[in-house]
Amino acid sequence: MSHPLFETHRKTIESALDATRKRDYWSAYPEIPSGKIYGETAKDDGFNAFKARLNATFELDQPANGTVGAESSPFGLELNIRYPASDLDTLITASRTAQAAWGAAEVEARVGVCLEILHRLNRSSFEIANAVMHTTGQGFMMAFQAGGPHAQDRGLEAVAYAYDEMRRTPTKANWTKRVSKTDSITLEKTYRIVPRGVGVVIGCSTFPTWNGYPGLFASLATGNSVIVKPHPGAILPLAITVSIARDVLRQAGFDPNVVTLAADTSDAPITKELVQRPEVGIIDYTGSSAFGDWIEAHAKHAAVYTEKAGVNSTVIDSIADLKAVTGNLAFSLCLYSGQMCTTPQNIFIPQDGIRVGDEQKSFDEVAGAIVKAVDWLLSDGARAAEVLGAIQNPATVDRIDAARQLGAEILRDSQPVDNEAFPAARVHSPMILKTGAANRELFAKELFGPIAFIVATESTDQSIALSSELAGTCGAITAGVYSTDENVLQKAEQAAAAAGVPLSCNLTGPIYVNQAAAFSDFHVSGANPAGNATLCDSAFIANRFRIVQSRRIVS
Amino acid sequence: MSHPLFETHRKTIESALDATRKRDYWSAYPEIPSGKIYGETAKDDGFNAFKARLNATFELDQPANGTVGAESSPFGLELNIRYPASDLDTLITASRTAQAAWGAAEVEARVGVCLEILHRLNRSSFEIANAVMHTTGQGFMMAFQAGGPHAQDRGLEAVAYAYDEMRRTPTKANWTKRVSKTDSITLEKTYRIVPRGVGVVIGCSTFPTWNGYPGLFASLATGNSVIVKPHPGAILPLAITVSIARDVLRQAGFDPNVVTLAADTSDAPITKELVQRPEVGIIDYTGSSAFGDWIEAHAKHAAVYTEKAGVNSTVIDSIADLKAVTGNLAFSLCLYSGQMCTTPQNIFIPQDGIRVGDEQKSFDEVAGAIVKAVDWLLSDGARAAEVLGAIQNPATVDRIDAARQLGAEILRDSQPVDNEAFPAARVHSPMILKTGAANRELFAKELFGPIAFIVATESTDQSIALSSELAGTCGAITAGVYSTDENVLQKAEQAAAAAGVPLSCNLTGPIYVNQAAAFSDFHVSGANPAGNATLCDSAFIANRFRIVQSRRIVS
Repeated sequence: MSHPLFETHRKTIESALDATRKRDYWSAYPEIPSGKIYGETAKDDGFNAFKARLNATFELDQPANGTVGAESSPFGLELNIRYPASDLDTLITASRTAQAAWGAAEVEARVGVCLEILHRLNRSSFEIANAVMHTTGQGFMMAFQAGGPHAQDRGLEAVAYAYDEMRRTPTKANWTKRVSKTDSITLEKTYRIVPRGVGVVIGCSTFPTWNGYPGLFASLATGNSVIVKPHPGAILPLAITVSIARDVLRQAGFDPNVVTLAADTSDAPITKELVQRPEVGIIDYTGSSAFGDWIEAHAKHAAVYTEKAGVNSTVIDSIADLKAVTGNLAFSLCLYSGQMCTTPQNIFIPQDGIRVGDEQKSFDEVAGAIVKAVDWLLSDGARAAEVLGAIQNPATVDRIDAARQLGAEILRDSQPVDNEAFPAARVHSPMILKTGAANRELFAKELFGPIAFIVATESTDQSIALSSELAGTCGAITAGVYSTDENVLQKAEQAAAAAGVPLSCNLTGPIYVNQAAAFSDFHVSGANPAGNATLCDSAFIANRFRIVQSRRIVS
Repeated sequence: MSHPLFETHRKTIESALDATRKRDYWSAYPEIPSGKIYGETAKDDGFNAFKARLNATFELDQPANGTVGAESSPFGLELNIRYPASDLDTLITASRTAQAAWGAAEVEARVGVCLEILHRLNRSSFEIANAVMHTTGQGFMMAFQAGGPHAQDRGLEAVAYAYDEMRRTPTKANWTKRVSKTDSITLEKTYRIVPRGVGVVIGCSTFPTWNGYPGLFASLATGNSVIVKPHPGAILPLAITVSIARDVLRQAGFDPNVVTLAADTSDAPITKELVQRPEVGIIDYTGSSAFGDWIEAHAKHAAVYTEKAGVNSTVIDSIADLKAVTGNLAFSLCLYSGQMCTTPQNIFIPQDGIRVGDEQKSFDEVAGAIVKAVDWLLSDGARAAEVLGAIQNPATVDRIDAARQLGAEILRDSQPVDNEAFPAARVHSPMILKTGAANRELFAKELFGPIAFIVATESTDQSIALSSELAGTCGAITAGVYSTDENVLQKAEQAAAAAGVPLSCNLTGPIYVNQAAAFSDFHVSGANPAGNATLCDSAFIANRFRIVQSRRIVS
């Protein structure tokens, strides 16, 4: 059987497979929002497509009874978009019905459809960038890169792992066993890939596509139908995604209900009911630890993959070039106002200071240099607006206010920041607090948003121990270390491995602890409370389908 | 670094890997208990080694405080073996301590140790066969094959999948990204395999090694330490296994507490406490559905792999050669007195009879032919003793008694059977009952042991529907179908795939629905209530370790 979509994108999937095995730099979708790559009108076209979505009903021809939606842009733009509201019984029935032919299709047919969806998502990167920007609060460049090509790369990575996994077992085998000196018996065995059922992808409010695509494409490629349940505050990016997926499915001859949208509002949430439905076989969740823990405990009938939250640490032991380090750290703290699950929260520095080049610098000098680097980064209004983006959730602003009352010394207070293009944008610069290692109750929990602690420790050994301990108890998605001493780096590496947290050593220049590159970086280890899965490995894929065999005597 | 054990067994692991990808016939360990293969004195040596274990304390140099053990042979032999009793705190601490260096070892070092353990288990196949026979009640030939080489093949299969999975990701990669027209940045990334922690393998009373080895070797190869918790009625086969594993570990320079034994008695069971310990990261369970369901519900902190029980069906639609079919079925029903999780329980035949060759045969004629085939198989005393083995658990004999009172017509009653070599053996021939499809309350549950129903249905369509329905509600590990009609076979295949149950079509001759061959047959699909995992695929392996990365700037 020929699979034209697979053939069209064969080179892409083969390169992706190769990249997952080499884990060197590779990307299928260009991250530069350039007219030369995406077409000279792509930027305007994308913005106009986005604008046309506003103050309107988002059309999706899935079973629906009414509309729902209450998103608001952190940049102050009126969105006022209504999405189809679907009764769960109807939606799940439609999803299961669509799943039958999808699950029975040949692997290459499904993989081809997934690759075509990704290709079209890539062509819609500008529209999606605007949708991501005006729901999550990311600055445009980040919304384009993380919400567009980087998210598409993560989706492709999941398709590559799924394809690799499904073709690991042949579809047929002949098994011949000698049963006596003269006789043998031959069985023909058929191995069928059987999907688990309905997959549910639960999106988050900050990275709806980047965190949503891996589960979506992993479940889809392995033959499951998928119900996409976006965060009520960030529906649009995933609604566009669902719409594109349905177009491709329909054109390829499949029931478009293989992918459906389950939108809701925070006033009338549907996620708990949805994930407890017995028809649901797979759940991919990104979001708060509290709700993720609830899903892990209550959805025992399904395979559950979670990315929750944690407390990320950076250990500063000794550095060669203070400016290079503080500049890098400042960018990490400011990027998207600390609303990344990869942003460092706690920076541990020995109270007696550290070696900087040939000099000894006091704790306060180093802490002061970090504050100064943040101040410099935000000193240019346009740059500040782009780097900080906006605060997605008003509760994060309340958290900043509350942090002022913690009793920790405020090294740098958070302030509202103007955004020239969007005067109503909710923008607040990072707050940097100082405390001591003894005050664990302050920093040993997640304070989501632009709030960081610089913590004075007795020694680097204590810094490393605290970093590991927090990863073990609160979870951690990233860790950083700065040291000019190879022994310290190795100690930090071993501690991070034991605590199950990916470590970045001595980052300077334009590469940040916050970033995780598809095909190379494993995002979330799955080995501490910050999540039970990684993006992306075989464990993320292999349990989404089962192999059911049949055998017949040939002779 | 050189890994001598890996080099010694390199050809074995490479052939095993090849076999898992081709799934044709392959075996590393000869199944014929022949002196030419195993050495002319192997049989006697094995028996003597077994005999030396009786009425003695089983020496294992693991932390212990006292002894425990109350096995009794279903063949009536006095066992009277005492095993080390270990306080769980001490045992888990020792296991975790041992795990540190084991988990940090290179992949080939661990795989080499696993291969050497399997090699030595193979050399001890005769001793283990006697141990399996006199704990499970299997006849000697089955105890040798299923308890020895076939179990070793299943263990090797798990090692092969683990090795394949661990080497999927390189240990290091250089990631170079162009960051501007003139500049690029290079990160060196290190990917560490980090085990989950302590693995617990919970053995069953009927196939302690065959069902225990996959989890044991899957967890071991991926760097976890393993506590082996045998069924209180079948400790010896796993105690010998643990002893051999500890010898190899010690000789290879590892702490032997990487593998320990946690024996108990049914009066003072320790499994519930053990599996709920937070240090336990992986649980492999084989046993009853009730306890398996309890573990799945209560051990939420660990990765849990279960093989529970189900209700297996055979659908008879039409057959070419009655004798060939009934002879094959009779053997399946008698083998190990129906105590295999793969034994058919319900045989569905249309009430109006079926086509047999060119004739129409009535339901009663076909049912009678099955009874006759069982009678013939058991008509020779020595053959009967070997095929039936003995009843492992007295509760199974009670179940036979209770089945007489079910109200179903008794087509063949169960009777005590003499075993010349072991006069005290607990041997009972299969009971065959007749009922109608309407009496679901009789056959729609597991009746473990030598109890089978021949169920009169309205049609083959109903037979297939009932078979699938029971797989969906009660679970099923095997299914069989006999039909000369290709359309019926395809219908049965599709229904079995949807119900997640492996299907065997038209088996005659010396190949039985009960058998599942390593490297080719997936045992238990994981897609119905009979279990959540299969032996063996990537899903059985991939989540037993995590990859934790570290990255450094190179330039």
